[in-house]
Amino acid sequence: MRIGIVGAGQLGRMMALSGIPLGIEFAMYDTHAGVPGAAVAEIFTGAFDDRRKLARFARAVDVLTFDWENVPVASARAIAAIRPVWPPPRALEVAQDRVAEKRLFRRLGIPVAPFAAVDSAAGLARAIGSLGMPGILKTRRLGYDGKGQVRIRRVRDAAAAYQQLAGQPLVYERFVDFAREVSLIGVRDRHGAVRHYPLAENEHVAGILAVTRAPYSDVRLQRLAERNHRRLMHVLGYVGVLCVEFFVAHGRLVANEMAPRVHNSGHWTIEGAVTSQFENHVRAVAGLPLGDTRALGHAAMVNVIGTRPRARDFLAMPGLHWHDYGKAERPGRKLGHVTLVAASRGQRDRAARRLRRRLIVQR
Amino acid sequence: MRIGIVGAGQLGRMMALSGIPLGIEFAMYDTHAGVPGAAVAEIFTGAFDDRRKLARFARAVDVLTFDWENVPVASARAIAAIRPVWPPPRALEVAQDRVAEKRLFRRLGIPVAPFAAVDSAAGLARAIGSLGMPGILKTRRLGYDGKGQVRIRRVRDAAAAYQQLAGQPLVYERFVDFAREVSLIGVRDRHGAVRHYPLAENEHVAGILAVTRAPYSDVRLQRLAERNHRRLMHVLGYVGVLCVEFFVAHGRLVANEMAPRVHNSGHWTIEGAVTSQFENHVRAVAGLPLGDTRALGHAAMVNVIGTRPRARDFLAMPGLHWHDYGKAERPGRKLGHVTLVAASRGQRDRAARRLRRRLIVQR
Repeated sequence: MRIGIVGAGQLGRMMALSGIPLGIEFAMYDTHAGVPGAAVAEIFTGAFDDRRKLARFARAVDVLTFDWENVPVASARAIAAIRPVWPPPRALEVAQDRVAEKRLFRRLGIPVAPFAAVDSAAGLARAIGSLGMPGILKTRRLGYDGKGQVRIRRVRDAAAAYQQLAGQPLVYERFVDFAREVSLIGVRDRHGAVRHYPLAENEHVAGILAVTRAPYSDVRLQRLAERNHRRLMHVLGYVGVLCVEFFVAHGRLVANEMAPRVHNSGHWTIEGAVTSQFENHVRAVAGLPLGDTRALGHAAMVNVIGTRPRARDFLAMPGLHWHDYGKAERPGRKLGHVTLVAASRGQRDRAARRLRRRLIVQR
Repeated sequence: MRIGIVGAGQLGRMMALSGIPLGIEFAMYDTHAGVPGAAVAEIFTGAFDDRRKLARFARAVDVLTFDWENVPVASARAIAAIRPVWPPPRALEVAQDRVAEKRLFRRLGIPVAPFAAVDSAAGLARAIGSLGMPGILKTRRLGYDGKGQVRIRRVRDAAAAYQQLAGQPLVYERFVDFAREVSLIGVRDRHGAVRHYPLAENEHVAGILAVTRAPYSDVRLQRLAERNHRRLMHVLGYVGVLCVEFFVAHGRLVANEMAPRVHNSGHWTIEGAVTSQFENHVRAVAGLPLGDTRALGHAAMVNVIGTRPRARDFLAMPGLHWHDYGKAERPGRKLGHVTLVAASRGQRDRAARRLRRRLIVQR
């Protein structure tokens, strides 16, 4: 069995690291060869819209998946005509457009913040008028790590916000007054069997995920999140790992966005759960039975962003696990992450605070 | 940092799988390219005594180690003149000769079975006369998985035993009436810091390791084994993982042999300990601080030997971890292993029995 991954970043790299022990081989497709996946897979290079090269890649593998959700949907559909592709291209299509995503959430009864598509300055004024403020103007496509977003607190912010993002389809969302952000990662196999990990709590710094702590133990919210997540996977005919981010606002869950792939807020599962999100994604895509998603303790994951500290300074910390993606330093870039699994929530939180202080330099 | 591994079998493969997350790259040297390590490293090919090719390999990396202890000592010394080599070639030299190994054990006060070097039929008769029976005649070099060994129960077995192994240096060992076999895996870094894993109990079938259960909890034996192990690492100036196998006989430890590398009886540490033997070997060789060796529960490891069952039949077992080495089937060949980590010893032992029945077909 050979799995082809479109995109060869750290997510593809970690999929291969977890899938190679299953006896599976990996090939990856990316725009250049100097990618994190190169350590663990044969790399095919080409543009993400080069149908001819993508077809050649598809024919070299048995089944395909993604490490990046912004692969052009037309490309995803083209390779799906050659080999099975999981998750289905339809899931990418929905996830690539914030408006399509929110409409799907709403259709499935999953609460979302009030929103309106915006195509003009007048449209933004109308949206603000009907939905109220504060709010956030976002690009409908290609936003990540806080990029392509502007807050609007007062009417006079609107013009500047619109100018900053104009020229592409936008969406205005009413700001959700949330206490915390949690994410739910679940996986569905080809026969429709589903497993969910415990909810994880996420903390962002400058729009980038900085710290995840898991499990976030709330039986009621877990059940609610799983129900929403299950509906999404079902309606999309989903196979693989899907992440849904929720705000926790006044005891309710409000869906923020979904990622049709393994997700940074699930990196803790490598050491913190019986089977990692990466292995479970590979199992699902390969048509193998899903693995146990139970947490093994209380895990904290802290991202290494922008600059790479000396590994030796951290490896001396008892129980710390180091994950270097093999990428060059660049401001705001995710270069790796560290994970600690503690016996108690208190220990975990103390360790997370210590690591956060040492690793998160941006504020 | 790029580590070169001489030998590219499953041990090298698992070293790389655990070392890549540390940001380390791997290259491996073996006689051909179709090796388990090929999934995770650049492969250099050549004979193990081809000094020119080995030198080219050594110059392509920063530091060197082994996945096979029978690399010719002259080759190990040759590459040690080019780059640091850990463990030191002296450790290979000792481990390659059962007599040198036992002499070192004895010199360090580590109990061994009575033994005598044997170079002739007459020498064997003398050894039997002075040491008694039953005993085992073994080749001094290149024995593994029960190969190159013949039992001698009665005087009349001696001639046939000698004929079977004649033509190479031999050793006769008095049989140890042991209750069980345990192994101790420990690791030493470049500054002499040492960590030991808990003892593991090993069960062989037809001379091949079949099942390991860990931790084997016996505080007294653990302390005794660690003392012996520490002496060995100290006198050899050892860096990396060293495995020592002991018989437990009438409450005492009798050293059987050592392996100057990561070892099959330590595969349980991938999921069963905070830091695996593979990662700790890589850390030591790379000059990084050692990781926590604590057990995370009660682990059972069962080898997959000779024929490969369908992964899907096993992956459905809750909590099972599958490790396929990507090798072709061949009688008696280690193709992979499975690990289960249970919350209690009883659960672990039941799971181990179940797996043993399903996986160990040779008797």
